[in-house]
Amino acid sequence: MSVFTSYDFQMMSRAISLAKRGIYTTSPNPNVGCVIAHGDTIVGEGYHAKAGEPHAEVHALRMAGEQAKGATAYVTLEPCSHYGRTPPCAEGLIKAGIRRVVCAMKDPNPQVAGRGITMLSHAGVEVAVGLLEAESRALNPAFLKRMETGRPLVQLKLAASLDGQTALANGASQWITSQQARQDVQHYRAQACAILSTSQTVIADNASLNVRWHDLPESVQAQYPQDQVRQPARVILDRQHHLTAQLNLYQQSGAVFTVSEHDADICVGLDEHHQLSLKALFDSLANQQQLNHIWVEAGATLARSLLQHQLVDELIVYLAPKIMGSDGRGLLGALGLIEMHQVMEFDIKDIRQVGPDIRVILIPKPINE
Amino acid sequence: MSVFTSYDFQMMSRAISLAKRGIYTTSPNPNVGCVIAHGDTIVGEGYHAKAGEPHAEVHALRMAGEQAKGATAYVTLEPCSHYGRTPPCAEGLIKAGIRRVVCAMKDPNPQVAGRGITMLSHAGVEVAVGLLEAESRALNPAFLKRMETGRPLVQLKLAASLDGQTALANGASQWITSQQARQDVQHYRAQACAILSTSQTVIADNASLNVRWHDLPESVQAQYPQDQVRQPARVILDRQHHLTAQLNLYQQSGAVFTVSEHDADICVGLDEHHQLSLKALFDSLANQQQLNHIWVEAGATLARSLLQHQLVDELIVYLAPKIMGSDGRGLLGALGLIEMHQVMEFDIKDIRQVGPDIRVILIPKPINE
Repeated sequence: MSVFTSYDFQMMSRAISLAKRGIYTTSPNPNVGCVIAHGDTIVGEGYHAKAGEPHAEVHALRMAGEQAKGATAYVTLEPCSHYGRTPPCAEGLIKAGIRRVVCAMKDPNPQVAGRGITMLSHAGVEVAVGLLEAESRALNPAFLKRMETGRPLVQLKLAASLDGQTALANGASQWITSQQARQDVQHYRAQACAILSTSQTVIADNASLNVRWHDLPESVQAQYPQDQVRQPARVILDRQHHLTAQLNLYQQSGAVFTVSEHDADICVGLDEHHQLSLKALFDSLANQQQLNHIWVEAGATLARSLLQHQLVDELIVYLAPKIMGSDGRGLLGALGLIEMHQVMEFDIKDIRQVGPDIRVILIPKPINE
Repeated sequence: MSVFTSYDFQMMSRAISLAKRGIYTTSPNPNVGCVIAHGDTIVGEGYHAKAGEPHAEVHALRMAGEQAKGATAYVTLEPCSHYGRTPPCAEGLIKAGIRRVVCAMKDPNPQVAGRGITMLSHAGVEVAVGLLEAESRALNPAFLKRMETGRPLVQLKLAASLDGQTALANGASQWITSQQARQDVQHYRAQACAILSTSQTVIADNASLNVRWHDLPESVQAQYPQDQVRQPARVILDRQHHLTAQLNLYQQSGAVFTVSEHDADICVGLDEHHQLSLKALFDSLANQQQLNHIWVEAGATLARSLLQHQLVDELIVYLAPKIMGSDGRGLLGALGLIEMHQVMEFDIKDIRQVGPDIRVILIPKPINE
């Protein structure tokens, strides 16, 4: 059990703050921050900004230079031990003469998984692990889920009136929710590795499904300059090959992956209901495409299927304070339930007002079979 | 323009706190608190507890006794000037030798409406009005609405799943919302002068529609002893005379008023849709029955009609974090809307979690015709 001083806490808090600066851009890498302190002076600091660019430790070591000798490095995640797009950070810390490394948590990435810590210890560096671990885990929920389960974190977005309608009977739906709610959606898109939808939804709205910098909240724009915008990949279920190159979807920067049984960017088999297997798709997105975090914007059919297959980590529902009548189009469509114990149940994670609307974040409970 | 000291503010705040003790019991009278201070000493205080019992000023004067001479009385509402069930308080204050009266607000009751203040002034008592007026108005929203408009304050309660369903297709609905939400409903019932429902709802559930002290939140029980419970009147639309004496409704204390075109406790005519006129009913409830505050618990048909007639002051919706499917029974039923500008819109007054559920308080916006 390591003993940490209040100075250690301060330095790790600082490293966590630094890590957050990469929140929109590090995908598929984790957000990591690093502070190097010599005595009671910060001599270096850095964060990971973008895959392919230097890790947090490299920025901090560069800034510290000769002052790294005998210093303590605070890192929000175990330093890496493998040669990827950059040399291992554990080696860099050793070479720079760092005396002590404090990590908030081990890296569950099977390519690291304690080997960074071992490498440091073997070189005689004092290593302590577990300082502000919960706070550091919260930096990377999607990365950690992928590393720990082989599946991406899935957030499903729905929007409806207070009486659960997503459109009038004739399909009219512009606009149920407010501009502020739609800006909030932009903020979620900007954090995702990919946006999942269907060709039906894409074609109906000729949707771009991209991040529009001008629509991001000002507080986000301030820390995320327009020229740095990373567009999430668009993953579109298109079993019948309806997507065409003329659609707005293809007029934007950022990758588009079509999904079908064959002749698609991602080919997946069918599930027990003869639909494209969403489990197989998510396995592929996590393991082949290295996508940590999927944001789903689609219609009732895909939403229902995701929830029924228990593939949703968080349901984000925007409710407009409006009543449209039950002859409109329902949130998930008909479910054919006959007993109350069959209804889908959720725990509330967060409720708040977004502009004139309500946003509820829900965690699905296990389904009663 | 009166000038108030910080001591005046303190004393009126105290009077407002005292007034709140009557919140469950004063109907149809307003909540009123009174503090009598001599120099910097409180010599008397009181609040109005129940119609027919002494007013706040009487309690405070009794407690002050001889020390009322030359003292200042702080009252949250203008002292009354008329002989009702009790003699006028203005007269009592004069006789006791009160030197100065500070009222938070004039009483809009046409039987008072400034005459209490005039009576005091004519007797040589110094009178100041308007201290903490907004806070004092907030003690009596329903009483003030009735006095100022001749209509009661109407709160409509609805409960549904997150997708706006009030029951499955076969009618199963026990329980959509949690025990905590149902306790919250008890708290609202306890504050109402009357509960409005329909014979259909009453018969379907054999509902008592009463206040069950054991189901009130503990914080309410602590200030509202079981033997003091005032049962709101039950006002039941029963056009076809379906109610029978065997129903639970009639096995409880508290008045029941049936409503129909004829042969009922309250007879009202029909509206333009050949339904019982809700406007006429509310006029009668306010002016004949002196009911300030109506809490509505009913099905989709009455709820829809109240909203469409713009007779709802507040809509209180309990949303359970559940999805039941759009083949269930919708919040207001079908509305037949064809354009988005026709949807009913609301402003959000409050959102909060109640146990595992969400409670939203909404204020209807004027309907676009």
